[in-house]
Amino acid sequence: MKAVELTGEIVRLIDQRRLPGSLQHVEATDYREVAEAVRNMTVRGAPAIGIAAAYGFYLGALETARRLGPEADPRDLQQPLLQIASLLKGTRPTAVNLFWAIDRMMRRTQELVEGKKSRLSIPEVVEELRREAVAIHQEDIEMNHQMGRFGRDLIPEGAGVLTHCNTGALATGDYGTALGVIRAAWEQGKKIHVFADETRPLLQGARLTAWELVQEGIPATLITDNMAGYLMKLGKIQVAIVGADRITANGDVANKIGTYSVAVLARVHNIPFFVAAPSSTIDLSIGSGDEIIIEERKPEEVTTLGGIRIAPEGIGVANPAFDVTPHRYVTGIITDRGVVYPPYSLNLRRAAGVKSARG
Amino acid sequence: MKAVELTGEIVRLIDQRRLPGSLQHVEATDYREVAEAVRNMTVRGAPAIGIAAAYGFYLGALETARRLGPEADPRDLQQPLLQIASLLKGTRPTAVNLFWAIDRMMRRTQELVEGKKSRLSIPEVVEELRREAVAIHQEDIEMNHQMGRFGRDLIPEGAGVLTHCNTGALATGDYGTALGVIRAAWEQGKKIHVFADETRPLLQGARLTAWELVQEGIPATLITDNMAGYLMKLGKIQVAIVGADRITANGDVANKIGTYSVAVLARVHNIPFFVAAPSSTIDLSIGSGDEIIIEERKPEEVTTLGGIRIAPEGIGVANPAFDVTPHRYVTGIITDRGVVYPPYSLNLRRAAGVKSARG
Repeated sequence: MKAVELTGEIVRLIDQRRLPGSLQHVEATDYREVAEAVRNMTVRGAPAIGIAAAYGFYLGALETARRLGPEADPRDLQQPLLQIASLLKGTRPTAVNLFWAIDRMMRRTQELVEGKKSRLSIPEVVEELRREAVAIHQEDIEMNHQMGRFGRDLIPEGAGVLTHCNTGALATGDYGTALGVIRAAWEQGKKIHVFADETRPLLQGARLTAWELVQEGIPATLITDNMAGYLMKLGKIQVAIVGADRITANGDVANKIGTYSVAVLARVHNIPFFVAAPSSTIDLSIGSGDEIIIEERKPEEVTTLGGIRIAPEGIGVANPAFDVTPHRYVTGIITDRGVVYPPYSLNLRRAAGVKSARG
Repeated sequence: MKAVELTGEIVRLIDQRRLPGSLQHVEATDYREVAEAVRNMTVRGAPAIGIAAAYGFYLGALETARRLGPEADPRDLQQPLLQIASLLKGTRPTAVNLFWAIDRMMRRTQELVEGKKSRLSIPEVVEELRREAVAIHQEDIEMNHQMGRFGRDLIPEGAGVLTHCNTGALATGDYGTALGVIRAAWEQGKKIHVFADETRPLLQGARLTAWELVQEGIPATLITDNMAGYLMKLGKIQVAIVGADRITANGDVANKIGTYSVAVLARVHNIPFFVAAPSSTIDLSIGSGDEIIIEERKPEEVTTLGGIRIAPEGIGVANPAFDVTPHRYVTGIITDRGVVYPPYSLNLRRAAGVKSARG
């Protein structure tokens, strides 16, 4: 099951707003439609929106190339693609994978058209950009499997495992980050029981994580977000694993609203709290979580459900889509390059492949 | 606005399942209908269900008296009323006010029919039982105003006040417990801002508390339960106040699921956490919260909303209606007799009017 797929010149997305009621697809045939699908959360999950945006960038390159014609100077692609990149980046502000994927596509464009030895035609450049987007997707899947291999050993036999939001196949290229780690522990033969926070307001846990767990046959219990602390107190949870939308240089983690509470409650109950995220989620350009822009979404996500009004007219509403968990609450960060432990300022740089000053 | 009213021989209840969409009433004309209204949460909130049950008991006495005839021995009321009491008590297991109210009605029956000087006829006994039920209701309202007077000083000027579930007029005889305290601070002229947890699964915060706050014109923001911790971290909340369904001799508090997490998060952020409850909520017969039976409600409350399925078939569900907050997280308990502080084992006995061994 792929949340995002490129089929010829169509980006095919599972419409995650309709799950688990029905499994329908949205087919985006140009980059504007991809941008809208990211904005309205047809596709969501930090890695998945990065992949969708890369494919959207490719559709943008295709459209631009057709407009310029095959004989034009490939360098003429750059200006229009910068604008397309900017539109795609403007869809959602918090997850870094979106910026990471678009920046990588833009950098690749630059290499392809500016290289002195480059003698590629416009159609050849576009084909290379298609390959780059597909590579981003494939690498994401491979990174998820790597995280699974590193992370599964952190889940004890017989454990109750709490997770928040959806971090499975639907949130990624395939397999999943935090849910991928849970899947890997299960595939290893461990008897585990998953507790899935429903994750208000958009219920990604109830609608998506529960759906993936049922499909996979992993024993699981759906809970409302406000039950997690009490289940910890009752001794039902041995480990908590969540994903991330952005991890800053000091190890602070932006993730779905409610993650911070899970982390604090886990700490109070002496339960390890792990974050699983590909290295593309690590943003060394930002020192701490205080600098992350938190997306505020529309009040109707809180005041209505399936079109039904659940709160009175006239009430104020807060709807931050994410929160920031300070690194001191994070036991370890499971990446595709291994599990990173504190001190994060040092060890995340290593995981992100940055050499220290002393080499 | 009264959630529960006795009009002649009818118990008139606001149908709280339909708020805030529409304000409708259910009219119960016999005790079985009252029992069903408590069970299906037409009426909810610990004090309100106590009042409804007392009125239901009166309807039961009326029905029994008619069956026995005015000339029968009033002592013949006792056996049937014990059965009616038992049915009413069997509706919901956690809130003690229900048992307290029924026990008080049963005790009053005993006094009225067994007293040696008693020469009351059956119709006179039934009339006395009506007065007793009305007294329970009136005393509850008076206790709420008392709590307001004691509690309002605990809310600082300009405070962000977090509350959970509904503890207002709808949950009580009128005015409210925790929401009554908030109301009292507002009526005192304090500039406060209320943050109301929506309180999944049944959304009493979104549907009922938000509705009362809008009606009252108190500035308020509705949040999903998983936002509270993050708002505490951001410094938006200065005090948390909740109600209680049962308070044990050591100060442990059973209240709506999610209360425990609010209490723990408040502690971590150095925010005072108060419980407001009438003295009828204090259950000295139980030593600690571990002994409280927690009602497990049906999974559909979690997996559906307004009839719409929000989770896949086949997923397990937990749905405890309440949790227990250990007394060490409780800053103080606001009662109608004053604010009780630790050590609760000693001070709650005083508040409940029990004299110490030394007198």
